[in-house]
Amino acid sequence: MSGARFPVMELFGPTVQGEGMVIGRKTMFVRTAGCDYSCSWCDSAFTWDGSGKADIRMMNAQDIYEELYKLGGETFAHVTVSGGNPALLPQLGELIDLLHSRGIGVALETQGSRWQDWFWRIDELTLSPKPPSSGMVTDWAALDSIVARLTERKRLFSLKVVVFGDSDLEYAAGVHERYAHVPFYVQAGNDRLWETEPERLLPYLLERYRWLIDRVMPHPRLRQVHVLPQLHTWIWGNKKGV
Amino acid sequence: MSGARFPVMELFGPTVQGEGMVIGRKTMFVRTAGCDYSCSWCDSAFTWDGSGKADIRMMNAQDIYEELYKLGGETFAHVTVSGGNPALLPQLGELIDLLHSRGIGVALETQGSRWQDWFWRIDELTLSPKPPSSGMVTDWAALDSIVARLTERKRLFSLKVVVFGDSDLEYAAGVHERYAHVPFYVQAGNDRLWETEPERLLPYLLERYRWLIDRVMPHPRLRQVHVLPQLHTWIWGNKKGV
Repeated sequence: MSGARFPVMELFGPTVQGEGMVIGRKTMFVRTAGCDYSCSWCDSAFTWDGSGKADIRMMNAQDIYEELYKLGGETFAHVTVSGGNPALLPQLGELIDLLHSRGIGVALETQGSRWQDWFWRIDELTLSPKPPSSGMVTDWAALDSIVARLTERKRLFSLKVVVFGDSDLEYAAGVHERYAHVPFYVQAGNDRLWETEPERLLPYLLERYRWLIDRVMPHPRLRQVHVLPQLHTWIWGNKKGV
Repeated sequence: MSGARFPVMELFGPTVQGEGMVIGRKTMFVRTAGCDYSCSWCDSAFTWDGSGKADIRMMNAQDIYEELYKLGGETFAHVTVSGGNPALLPQLGELIDLLHSRGIGVALETQGSRWQDWFWRIDELTLSPKPPSSGMVTDWAALDSIVARLTERKRLFSLKVVVFGDSDLEYAAGVHERYAHVPFYVQAGNDRLWETEPERLLPYLLERYRWLIDRVMPHPRLRQVHVLPQLHTWIWGNKKGV
């Protein structure tokens, strides 16, 4: 089988999904390279800042599936595609269809800056617009249009905002109000990406998560929400490939 | 308004739901008293072992709603009912209907030993059959019948098994295979209920969660699963009322 090839940065698993609507799910990860954003606190900056360039491999859907199978064999039934921004890849639908044909579910995360028709075929799609602390500016027209298209076909999707401080939280409340019918997640941000010791990172992340809970609980504009940590960083710290 | 009265052990919130399919959800808690089980490691034994008897209040649906409102005001849109086993209370449907009439969603957890018609009206129902370490024996006929009734009306529900060791894990795999179409969660058990210091408890819970992940990842009978901690114990330890 030939078909389109994609820039792949990492393939790993099986592991536990650490974020959002699929938190806890046993899954394999496919991380694509390339992003239209450059968030100040991005935890996968190696996918777009040039530092991981040597690790990028051009792979088609069949190559990717074979390598996932080599890693996970018969032990998995779910794949998460993340980036970078995988929504930059118009032909990614080929991978989604191949995985579905093997009975494998597919989750995907993107910031919601670009639409792809294959969004309709994702089993759990997370749109994660970026708050002020990222340094990025949300394209509301693009996000409005993506949410409308997903809603129209009744797809299972959610919104997730990573929060580092109070202005991020007010941004999150605005997103939640704008798309009130969409399941909504706020996630405590990790701004200690340089910390190599999980034992030192954990108390800090716990404190940040407690801070977020304390802010959200009395917040009348954040009623229908989930408040979550980045679970994998609690377990493995900032280690890559888990 | 009058109506049926229920034995209520605790009312608290708003807080974060720490378990299963609703993990992270901003919610209020209603804990009912009384249980048909007596699990060896129950973290809410005060609901059934007599030690919390003095705290039990007989309240009707309106009383409960008013007290929840006093605690949470306009900040919440979700209530979790737990126990004990709330499925012992045939008239609990009155509370569910009252909450729904106020636009409030309702999650409920029960071991799946008894059916109630109001199960069909729960927004997120978790059935949590108890593994061998609990000392309880699963009534498979009862559980089969409950799963069949929920499936027939396409209700959103899940199965969750708390795991303390390898025989619990094999029990979990059996439950997952028996009800393969139902979203499935395994949860790392907490057998240090006597620990009063969250800072001492956390490293142990983390180790138990890592152990569970290490067991589930290569497990071919546990493919379509979520593996989660009891998130609230990581944040607040064994403290009650959070």
